[in-house]
Amino acid sequence: MAGGGAAASALSSPWRALLQRALDANAHLRHSTYFQLATVATGGRPANRTVVFRGFQENCDKIQINTDARSNKIGEIKSCPFGEICWYFTDTWEQFRISGSIDVIDGSNADPSKLQHREKAWFSSSVRSRLQYLGPQPGIPVLDDEQVKGIHLDPSAGPVDAFCLLVIDPEKVRQAFFFLILLFVDYLNLKSNQRLMFTRNQMDDGSNDWMAVKVSP
Amino acid sequence: MAGGGAAASALSSPWRALLQRALDANAHLRHSTYFQLATVATGGRPANRTVVFRGFQENCDKIQINTDARSNKIGEIKSCPFGEICWYFTDTWEQFRISGSIDVIDGSNADPSKLQHREKAWFSSSVRSRLQYLGPQPGIPVLDDEQVKGIHLDPSAGPVDAFCLLVIDPEKVRQAFFFLILLFVDYLNLKSNQRLMFTRNQMDDGSNDWMAVKVSP
Repeated sequence: MAGGGAAASALSSPWRALLQRALDANAHLRHSTYFQLATVATGGRPANRTVVFRGFQENCDKIQINTDARSNKIGEIKSCPFGEICWYFTDTWEQFRISGSIDVIDGSNADPSKLQHREKAWFSSSVRSRLQYLGPQPGIPVLDDEQVKGIHLDPSAGPVDAFCLLVIDPEKVRQAFFFLILLFVDYLNLKSNQRLMFTRNQMDDGSNDWMAVKVSP
Repeated sequence: MAGGGAAASALSSPWRALLQRALDANAHLRHSTYFQLATVATGGRPANRTVVFRGFQENCDKIQINTDARSNKIGEIKSCPFGEICWYFTDTWEQFRISGSIDVIDGSNADPSKLQHREKAWFSSSVRSRLQYLGPQPGIPVLDDEQVKGIHLDPSAGPVDAFCLLVIDPEKVRQAFFFLILLFVDYLNLKSNQRLMFTRNQMDDGSNDWMAVKVSP
């Protein structure tokens, strides 16, 4: 679920190798695949919540999250399609800050390959996880505790309408005025007190060139 | 450091009692006082990082954080003075989302009582924590690993210029157009699958009236 070591080592991103090492070293902790995703909410204020890492997309560094299409963050992301992940590994004292654009893939998406990714994400989830998408809308008042019981789901049935895949693409960003490259993967190790910043530069042939700079913690 | 149980029980906020219970239940974990603070960065994009809870301000529910006045977030907060805390307790599977305004208190603050809070926060930190404010500016490239060694700090000396206190005030927010009260403390317990939302309503006499609503997770 959390992206294979072999797949990671086949990729060139230096931060990806560090992240995979942290995932491996903290794999005994259930919460090692949880991170906090910040977005910008209505009115330009920040929003922040814990989400579950659902692995990297095949053959790239894009990060996948499952979410409920009826949750507030969907509208927020459609209005401001950017996020920053803050991922703290409690056993190795390592923090990754990963900033990028977010793609919302719900059942109405027009791209067949994206719908395929969504379907794959659905079947990769446990049946218990899938059941939550058949429950009431997140955030509405609970009138009756019994209303969520007795829901049945055919394990072979495809994704329901409320199931949404979010895909975060760690990306290079240029500021409009200054053409500065904003840093988008920021790694901090509190045990060694080492901090690294990674930037991506897309080459003419479409490949990515990564640069790591050691900075003051 | 993390706010006393007695002080918490003397306050009326229902979320504060839940938070104190989570702090107590997870106190054996070093990272139980770490949470993620989302803000809005330059260009209207979200930013997110792990910070350390430095307790509540005396006799109120305001949350304190120490930070470096030279870090990027200071400029960001001055431009958009709002944050959302996402605090996940790994042992009890509880999440608190606390949204509010942020007050930046550095050495140039004109309010003597705020400067007093800053001084108190400085002396409440370990000498080792204080030393980081004498190091190089966070985020600049490290040219020489030796540059941070050999720094001496007199333990009785007051806060240095780089030391900054952030005070988050969980607050009621009204949207300009609809006069809706935005929810600002959102509690989720993944063990019991219970979610509560708390809103504050300031009364005519200045006191706070809190309302808790059980909502769908």
